[in-house]
Amino acid sequence: MGKEYNIREAKREDMPAVLELIKELAEYENASDEVEIHVDDLEKEGFDEKNFKCFVADVDGGIEGMALVYFRFSTWKGRTVHLEDLIVRERMRGSGLGGALYNQVVQYGHENGVRRVEWVVSEGNKNAIEFYENTGAEIKKNWYTVHMDEHGIKKNINKYD
Amino acid sequence: MGKEYNIREAKREDMPAVLELIKELAEYENASDEVEIHVDDLEKEGFDEKNFKCFVADVDGGIEGMALVYFRFSTWKGRTVHLEDLIVRERMRGSGLGGALYNQVVQYGHENGVRRVEWVVSEGNKNAIEFYENTGAEIKKNWYTVHMDEHGIKKNINKYD
Repeated sequence: MGKEYNIREAKREDMPAVLELIKELAEYENASDEVEIHVDDLEKEGFDEKNFKCFVADVDGGIEGMALVYFRFSTWKGRTVHLEDLIVRERMRGSGLGGALYNQVVQYGHENGVRRVEWVVSEGNKNAIEFYENTGAEIKKNWYTVHMDEHGIKKNINKYD
Repeated sequence: MGKEYNIREAKREDMPAVLELIKELAEYENASDEVEIHVDDLEKEGFDEKNFKCFVADVDGGIEGMALVYFRFSTWKGRTVHLEDLIVRERMRGSGLGGALYNQVVQYGHENGVRRVEWVVSEGNKNAIEFYENTGAEIKKNWYTVHMDEHGIKKNINKYD
């Protein structure tokens, strides 16, 4: 592409562009209805309460990619870094932004002295799985993610009414 | 059993008993070497820095079970509650402590207004999967957990040395 890019920490004013990336990916996954957060949620959780950190790929002043991370706590390993989302705008795929954001996340884990960086991957995303394995990550195929959504939460709470 | 139990928030002084439960489970899974945390990590992360919350099942003053939770941030749903571990001492299985701790975790999510409570389960743990599904949770079998451990982190960092 010939364009320069800069991987940097996101600022509060980048959150509209970050939400746009989140929505672009959800649309790609036919799940637009699932995005229930707004710009003010990102501002509050990321900057007022510091519940996550976000890195962005800044290309000539435009946000073309992002990685959102936070700490978790493993009862075996202590603090870990969790990579929640790494998104590169579709038109910028193949330009190295994804790898640069990925390296930034690993670097962040290293700087914070964690024993583990973790994330999830869809079993259908063969290219990503191959990339992750090549970088030394382990795909734990025998562990399933479990989600209880609002409906499930209410159902369990109401048992005791 | 006829014994009374009390589900309550853990105190700092419960951490040695909580670590004992963590180690008991790791031993059961033939993974004792994997436990790299100490009591002071639990005290610091849980009580000084408040990076997790722990509930315990107190039976006549003894800690017979625990559930350890913390907040995560979903780019679709906002803040979520993650259940990292729910452990009941082996001799107390079947006494209702596990269900009571599980309900406490869902209640905690409800009180905090989250749209999701989440955790992981081993694919071999059929009883747990059936229990979770009966309570309205969804097992997301097409998502794999990925771990990059210390060795992987160092390997990626050293690429740039």
